[in-house]
Amino acid sequence: MAHKVFFTPGPAQLYPTFEKHLGVAVREQLGSISHRSKQFRTIYRHADEQLRTLLNIPASHAVLFTGSATEVWERAIQNGAGRETFHLVNGSFSKRFYEFATELGKNAHKAEAPFGEGFAVDKLDIPAPVELVCLTHNETSSGVSLPAAEMHKLKARYPEALFIVDMVSSAPYPALDYSLIDSAFFSVQKGFGLPAGLGVWIVNEKFLAKAEALKAAGQYVGTHHSLPSLWRNAKNFETPATPNVLGIYLLGQVAQDMNRTGVETIREQTRQRAVQIYKAIAASGGLEVFVKMPDHRSATVIVAGTRDNAPALIEKWKGENIVIGSGYGSYKEKQIRIANFPANTDEEIQRLLTAIGQL
Amino acid sequence: MAHKVFFTPGPAQLYPTFEKHLGVAVREQLGSISHRSKQFRTIYRHADEQLRTLLNIPASHAVLFTGSATEVWERAIQNGAGRETFHLVNGSFSKRFYEFATELGKNAHKAEAPFGEGFAVDKLDIPAPVELVCLTHNETSSGVSLPAAEMHKLKARYPEALFIVDMVSSAPYPALDYSLIDSAFFSVQKGFGLPAGLGVWIVNEKFLAKAEALKAAGQYVGTHHSLPSLWRNAKNFETPATPNVLGIYLLGQVAQDMNRTGVETIREQTRQRAVQIYKAIAASGGLEVFVKMPDHRSATVIVAGTRDNAPALIEKWKGENIVIGSGYGSYKEKQIRIANFPANTDEEIQRLLTAIGQL
Repeated sequence: MAHKVFFTPGPAQLYPTFEKHLGVAVREQLGSISHRSKQFRTIYRHADEQLRTLLNIPASHAVLFTGSATEVWERAIQNGAGRETFHLVNGSFSKRFYEFATELGKNAHKAEAPFGEGFAVDKLDIPAPVELVCLTHNETSSGVSLPAAEMHKLKARYPEALFIVDMVSSAPYPALDYSLIDSAFFSVQKGFGLPAGLGVWIVNEKFLAKAEALKAAGQYVGTHHSLPSLWRNAKNFETPATPNVLGIYLLGQVAQDMNRTGVETIREQTRQRAVQIYKAIAASGGLEVFVKMPDHRSATVIVAGTRDNAPALIEKWKGENIVIGSGYGSYKEKQIRIANFPANTDEEIQRLLTAIGQL
Repeated sequence: MAHKVFFTPGPAQLYPTFEKHLGVAVREQLGSISHRSKQFRTIYRHADEQLRTLLNIPASHAVLFTGSATEVWERAIQNGAGRETFHLVNGSFSKRFYEFATELGKNAHKAEAPFGEGFAVDKLDIPAPVELVCLTHNETSSGVSLPAAEMHKLKARYPEALFIVDMVSSAPYPALDYSLIDSAFFSVQKGFGLPAGLGVWIVNEKFLAKAEALKAAGQYVGTHHSLPSLWRNAKNFETPATPNVLGIYLLGQVAQDMNRTGVETIREQTRQRAVQIYKAIAASGGLEVFVKMPDHRSATVIVAGTRDNAPALIEKWKGENIVIGSGYGSYKEKQIRIANFPANTDEEIQRLLTAIGQL
């Protein structure tokens, strides 16, 4: 089978060093080690340290592991809000985050923007009282991003509320200021170029205090995974139950590789590649940039409208071993999604640009 | 590094074919494929079919995937009981299952046996009303097993209640009769010889109907994973969120390998090896069998008391590349646990028996 190059918004292209690290993991029999062993704690600690360096996470925040980022939606709402949540909703994933809050019985408020549009954060008013503000840095369905600086400005206006950022399909791209952002999370099968099956939850002491207060007041904060038990275990570089040990090992290794390159280099490369891809789409006869406002365009998930049938284009490119994502939900026939994650090489990006240019 | 042989109760020795299947998965780029693709549905369907064959699971039951078996404790209680649960508790894991129910606000009843003992099921009375009966086939902490036939007899006395069986550290050993057992679950890092990060939940239509009734009555049944949404997605061989795709693929392959051997052959081999290991322990000067009642002794997790310091023995054997488990919790200094899972070869079992004989 010919080797495919993935530009899919996750699961995605695997990081170039993935196979090497997997080989080491197999040789060192990491699939068999106890999650209560020193060897596992060393693996957790290494991933923790590398992620702290990469994402500039301060000591006030813990790095926790869950089964997926979707699980973090549930756990964060259970642990971060007694009653009042606020959500920015502008696509399928931010909408699901909001729906989780309503399913959890919260009084969930939202500000909505049409699919393909972002928010003018200056003009937003969050109704009082609010406990937890849920932001989506990168709306994977529509390719709209909420710049980190805008999230920081919003937090400055509502310093009392807990702010949590879904950066599932953008991490490590957004340079979040964790003196403002109380919590953020992602899954490893997007920007980190790893197989799915692991969520990463970054969360601070203020969020923990809230969870403990809610628990003390009788609120259900989770059994398999609650923030207090995840936190307590993490202090010892352990997890409440047996985690995806192999996934944590691989994440630590890829984060270390990224640190060797330097996160600013990776971010600048992502920015430059995004400019090139958007430019190629705009110049192409067969595609058009979907997100109209340049400031709202995602650097990591690029959505384009197709002149012709989108599934046919996806099939055509698949024949050339270039795999891209389909439009989300009802946009399947008329849109494609192209991921721009750090795992892709310069050469692969050139192949993509050439393919776009030939449409 | 010399190759270690693991007899640990999970994570455990990897299945002999694990590396081969992992190599195929890497070559076929399964870490990158979409969980909404036909390719993924084929992987899910294959795992489903192989597990149905292996464990004799009828069409009334679905095969669902979660992040871990511990997650199933939470989801099963959320979805299977409005108020009343009943638990057999005789060790740390069955106790945690019970505690999950109390943390979830249930009126959780229990019958308790001392650590190292099992239950005389004939004499058990479950207080009415009961909705969900939670049984642990194999108590991983103490090495005590509740034979499948005993569970079936208990169900016959309480046909209206939902019966769920934790077979985390014994599957595929117990031959459950799914015309009686409504639900069972395990995680892949024990008897299936795979890296951790995937739970398997087998559950029937009656359990689903209960979950739907509870949900309709306003009970919280989960957001990230609820039984109705897991079930609805599974009908199409999909999952609500991105699952551990690689884990599901590997599980299907190992289950197929086991089917080639034949589950009865595997079970008979497990029984015979258990007899040999218990015999070697009884004959050894340095060890003694912990579980006194032969009928209650686990075939898959064998607990032995140590004459000398248990951690010293574990270290000594580690030096010989034989890795066993420590005694659980407060039994760390005086007990060892030896897993007897299908992944070990005859030759490895002989090495273990020789080592026991030399004590």
